[in-house]
Amino acid sequence: MSSTYGTNLKISIFGQSHSPAIGVSIDGLPAGFPIDFDELQTFLKRRMPGTAAHSTKRKEPDIPEFLSGLNDGVTCGAPLAAIIHSTDTRSSDYEQIKDIPRPSHADYTAYIKYGEKRDVRGGGSFSGRLTAPLCIAGGICLQLLRQQKINIRAHILQIANIQDRPFDPVNVSKKEIDFLKTADFSVLDTDAGERMKSAIEEARKSGDSLGGIIECAAIGVPAGIGDPIFDGMENRISAIIFGIPAVKGVEFGNGFSAAELRGSQNNDAFVIRNDVIQTSTNRHGGILGGITSGMPLLFRAAFKPTPSISIEQGSVSLSRKEEVRLAVTGRHDPCIVPRAVPCVEAAAAIAIYDALLGCKCAI
Amino acid sequence: MSSTYGTNLKISIFGQSHSPAIGVSIDGLPAGFPIDFDELQTFLKRRMPGTAAHSTKRKEPDIPEFLSGLNDGVTCGAPLAAIIHSTDTRSSDYEQIKDIPRPSHADYTAYIKYGEKRDVRGGGSFSGRLTAPLCIAGGICLQLLRQQKINIRAHILQIANIQDRPFDPVNVSKKEIDFLKTADFSVLDTDAGERMKSAIEEARKSGDSLGGIIECAAIGVPAGIGDPIFDGMENRISAIIFGIPAVKGVEFGNGFSAAELRGSQNNDAFVIRNDVIQTSTNRHGGILGGITSGMPLLFRAAFKPTPSISIEQGSVSLSRKEEVRLAVTGRHDPCIVPRAVPCVEAAAAIAIYDALLGCKCAI
Amino acid sequence: MSSTYGTNLKISIFGQSHSPAIGVSIDGLPAGFPIDFDELQTFLKRRMPGTAAHSTKRKEPDIPEFLSGLNDGVTCGAPLAAIIHSTDTRSSDYEQIKDIPRPSHADYTAYIKYGEKRDVRGGGSFSGRLTAPLCIAGGICLQLLRQQKINIRAHILQIANIQDRPFDPVNVSKKEIDFLKTADFSVLDTDAGERMKSAIEEARKSGDSLGGIIECAAIGVPAGIGDPIFDGMENRISAIIFGIPAVKGVEFGNGFSAAELRGSQNNDAFVIRNDVIQTSTNRHGGILGGITSGMPLLFRAAFKPTPSISIEQGSVSLSRKEEVRLAVTGRHDPCIVPRAVPCVEAAAAIAIYDALLGCKCAI
Amino acid sequence: MSSTYGTNLKISIFGQSHSPAIGVSIDGLPAGFPIDFDELQTFLKRRMPGTAAHSTKRKEPDIPEFLSGLNDGVTCGAPLAAIIHSTDTRSSDYEQIKDIPRPSHADYTAYIKYGEKRDVRGGGSFSGRLTAPLCIAGGICLQLLRQQKINIRAHILQIANIQDRPFDPVNVSKKEIDFLKTADFSVLDTDAGERMKSAIEEARKSGDSLGGIIECAAIGVPAGIGDPIFDGMENRISAIIFGIPAVKGVEFGNGFSAAELRGSQNNDAFVIRNDVIQTSTNRHGGILGGITSGMPLLFRAAFKPTPSISIEQGSVSLSRKEEVRLAVTGRHDPCIVPRAVPCVEAAAAIAIYDALLGCKCAI
Repeated sequence: MSSTYGTNLKISIFGQSHSPAIGVSIDGLPAGFPIDFDELQTFLKRRMPGTAAHSTKRKEPDIPEFLSGLNDGVTCGAPLAAIIHSTDTRSSDYEQIKDIPRPSHADYTAYIKYGEKRDVRGGGSFSGRLTAPLCIAGGICLQLLRQQKINIRAHILQIANIQDRPFDPVNVSKKEIDFLKTADFSVLDTDAGERMKSAIEEARKSGDSLGGIIECAAIGVPAGIGDPIFDGMENRISAIIFGIPAVKGVEFGNGFSAAELRGSQNNDAFVIRNDVIQTSTNRHGGILGGITSGMPLLFRAAFKPTPSISIEQGSVSLSRKEEVRLAVTGRHDPCIVPRAVPCVEAAAAIAIYDALLGCKCAI
Repeated sequence: MSSTYGTNLKISIFGQSHSPAIGVSIDGLPAGFPIDFDELQTFLKRRMPGTAAHSTKRKEPDIPEFLSGLNDGVTCGAPLAAIIHSTDTRSSDYEQIKDIPRPSHADYTAYIKYGEKRDVRGGGSFSGRLTAPLCIAGGICLQLLRQQKINIRAHILQIANIQDRPFDPVNVSKKEIDFLKTADFSVLDTDAGERMKSAIEEARKSGDSLGGIIECAAIGVPAGIGDPIFDGMENRISAIIFGIPAVKGVEFGNGFSAAELRGSQNNDAFVIRNDVIQTSTNRHGGILGGITSGMPLLFRAAFKPTPSISIEQGSVSLSRKEEVRLAVTGRHDPCIVPRAVPCVEAAAAIAIYDALLGCKCAI
Repeated sequence: MSSTYGTNLKISIFGQSHSPAIGVSIDGLPAGFPIDFDELQTFLKRRMPGTAAHSTKRKEPDIPEFLSGLNDGVTCGAPLAAIIHSTDTRSSDYEQIKDIPRPSHADYTAYIKYGEKRDVRGGGSFSGRLTAPLCIAGGICLQLLRQQKINIRAHILQIANIQDRPFDPVNVSKKEIDFLKTADFSVLDTDAGERMKSAIEEARKSGDSLGGIIECAAIGVPAGIGDPIFDGMENRISAIIFGIPAVKGVEFGNGFSAAELRGSQNNDAFVIRNDVIQTSTNRHGGILGGITSGMPLLFRAAFKPTPSISIEQGSVSLSRKEEVRLAVTGRHDPCIVPRAVPCVEAAAAIAIYDALLGCKCAI
Repeated sequence: MSSTYGTNLKISIFGQSHSPAIGVSIDGLPAGFPIDFDELQTFLKRRMPGTAAHSTKRKEPDIPEFLSGLNDGVTCGAPLAAIIHSTDTRSSDYEQIKDIPRPSHADYTAYIKYGEKRDVRGGGSFSGRLTAPLCIAGGICLQLLRQQKINIRAHILQIANIQDRPFDPVNVSKKEIDFLKTADFSVLDTDAGERMKSAIEEARKSGDSLGGIIECAAIGVPAGIGDPIFDGMENRISAIIFGIPAVKGVEFGNGFSAAELRGSQNNDAFVIRNDVIQTSTNRHGGILGGITSGMPLLFRAAFKPTPSISIEQGSVSLSRKEEVRLAVTGRHDPCIVPRAVPCVEAAAAIAIYDALLGCKCAI
């Protein structure tokens, strides 16, 4: 199985890229919450394809239809189900894939797992399109969290070798987060953003693709959220972030770079600021022992370059069991990182809101 | 909550560093499996403190007592429970911590979550000592997996800035894995190992600590294990690996370095070798779409430097709510990475065995 | 939360009586299974209102729309989602309920739990209508089980004080089960069935309602399914059967009547029949120690009389906090037991199929 | 799997009748709770064998050893693990069972599931002895619930055909509950109790056994606990109650007898008493739509007669595959119902406390 996440808030995602609809059922939302549907739509638009030159040409309106869980537009306590109908599917693009798995896609492993009857069209249930229902659930959680003064925002830290300015781990601010809110392209350094766009355009022209890193911050998370050992915030967040296709690494705070540091360089001294216990630095990324410290929660997710490239590659014919050459055709993002930014925010929001619901603090 | 992992194999860990005992209950083991207890003890010894100069001086025999789940030394189908009694605890070492949280430890977040009655002795339930029951469960899973020709082995890829030779992603072999089996210090390049040991010794002398990276390989894993979206192998493995204290990052295959590559550089062409579909390279780390591809499963975990250092640091007094200076005393590892190697293997074994039990493949 | 069941097969139900749609997502179905949609429709029709004189007048076609999980009409391995659109909803019928909870309905507890914004229309998410998605999931499981020679069938054992002939616990046969398949009214004794129908009609006329008992048999279940303690077949089945509105009791084998028997009267001797170990009697209902014995699995579920009656009853006004008199109007079943028969079969099929998927047997 | 229960409070039970120890790990207890160990011991004593003439002669002190989760005798937030060492085991009593399964015991199904290596001694993991760790967990939950003014108490409603006075569904009082607290034999009508004891003694003499019914009440449970569909209080309670060996039926409120009633006879009118909304009768057993109504929560569990009887019965030899005669020897309770009373209370306490922890109410 695969498509259920959460303990106190439980989301179940369903759909394939070209199935009649994709959707999500969300169980455990508090009753009486007035979802801001315009804001949710604006949020969903950020992951939609076809809205920018640097993205795939496939056009999908991605307007959710709410089937249940609402009463006069307000959550009523019952599971909220929302679906997105598929409209612009060109299944003929994918005939070839059935026999010749695309390198570094899930085509081959889906064949092993599900056999002849797997749905290969558009990547089936492995498609990035399944992040749309994730974003519906996450978009609602973002609104619920904001009510509790918790704000989550991500930006493109890196595409290829072009780097955005990282968040200041201690002082990542509501202001910075608001800046990203209005940004057409999720970077803090618009200059770097332009260079990223050029790199993406250039990759598209050469039939290739690019990877990148997304950095995400959650500010306002109270200390004490999360649990030790297997239910720590790192476990919870990574368990959902790896649900976004193409993610191959997750790190918190200093992450991998901590490996090269000494304790004296990586430790964060406790200080008192405005009568509140904080840390003077934030190499721990707001999580100690799996539990939030009250400092900004910071993590990064690494995305591999989109495996769909039109440059010819080696593959095999499953039917003939022989090696063949393959050039992937069809509409594909040369870089899914820009569109993945809201997905990372959505996933983080779900994980944090679920942890918050399960939280009992003594202090 | 925190201490339960798994779906078809369910492990529940309990204990605090200085509680009368620590232990684990393992539910879902097949009946009739003859555990090799000597091998398990040898495995547990690899994470034991006090066995090498580069480790803490605390001596704990770590000999598990099996309470249930066995019949004539063979698993009987009932949950297997094993405990390790605490013997060498010097609780007086930890009096100070109750009021002054150690920087980058879980002391402060434990205080927030559990209040005055938290167990501060030895780090309580956040102690690295809780990896001993993890290793009991994982050690048994390693034996069960080997029966199915699946071998898992990890090595120290990096400590501070000293690097071991990485596994060859395509050809990581039973031989390499067997070499590590006999190694006193888990590195492929014994030279690099010596330099690591010197660096650890030097860190100890200066009252500081070091972090590092562990690389882990699972070979022989059949294609088709794991599930899409939230139950992929990356999700499952990261959800348990982050349960090992001090882990701050997890990456699979090329991981974070994939962010800088193009699709044409990161994709793995399918080939046919000895009549079997494989990939010519293994940048995907043996996982595509959350499901194993049949290639070696490869991941890396980043460990932050041990936060316990005797160099003076800034902290706060919780009772007086004022900033103070703190030098952590007591017996502490200057680098827990060498001892964490079997923990990573154990965690990987549990995650893979659990996934294997839940697996239905069409092909 | 509430609406998710299962471990290896996971179903998530959503919807309210009058929400735009109700539905279910089913995760864990094997890929490549050709659902017989006509048969499924016939099955769903058995719980549909308006098909018989003894039932409510509300007409709903209950034709599921399949949103995902299929490829050319065959399961593809992805979660199968199906919805039923609401068409014949008369929300004006329910205005009064918002202030005056109907006795023995969930109106009052829904008010406590979800507050002002709960969906009172048609009982909201507590409506018996939510058993339609349960029947979609269960109908598919029935087909999957039949493939493995497992057949499940229920009948009305009792309505008011009129009793049907019970299943023969030892020899409940495929034939008896097939007889029920063609029955318009699910009884073995058609005479008793006629008297039940008359009693229902008479209750309708007097504005009252009737309860009853449904007996369910699963034949062909191999020995060894289920687990001890909390995952026994009794635990699993009761945990889903109580999800059907109005069920207030569940018993297995001799059930409550075993309380009056002696061990020598209630024990089932083991015998060998056709080279197979069986029991000569079947007071244990096919389950010993939570695990199936290979004998017919037999259980009964007690349904309280429908709480919606037009006879005047006492209730309270939530807004005015005073006692009032209430006569429930609208379209209501005087007895939901006949329509609940396929729901019990569906629930049993889901529980048994889920247990089967998780089963490892040594023998 | 089998031995884990709960969502927000998670208990994991382990052990076999004759394993070195049996025990439980309890995850999710609030930190800072001072367990009354004397009271817990008194509670455990109620299920202990050998304390009364009507019980088995096996003597076990059943004194739990607490391995973790405590700090100065107070819960510290970490999982609480407690074990009971096995002392008085006479394994030789059980040699015969290995080949000849006892009728209506789990011997045969354990053989099917776990094969040759199952633990047959004393019933292995199917033994009633496993209710001791259940009672440790439940005994702690009873104390936690009482802090919130929730009291749970059960009594023997029936043994064979001898009936105790049932609880008054509306007015079951703290006083009645306190009376049971001091009772040596858990009945409201001491006269009936004496007759039950005689019947048990008489059954013992004739080598036979008796079943019975236990009725349990939880008073003070606030309205709004539990969830619709699969997580209702009926689902939750039955899912744990069926974990007690020999339970074959569970019913709530009027339960099975509701089947014979009309809606007008079974509905509970809402009334206002002391400014609180209540029901004038309590046929619903305090649960509507799976959610507590604020009225006493009432349920009954049916226990089959102990299958171990010394009267000769028919069985089979597994090795010779032939029918044989069997008279069960050894120390066995002729009626486990009296000892099961605290087990029912414990199970109910765990289910209710777990539901309470997960509860969000709007009103």
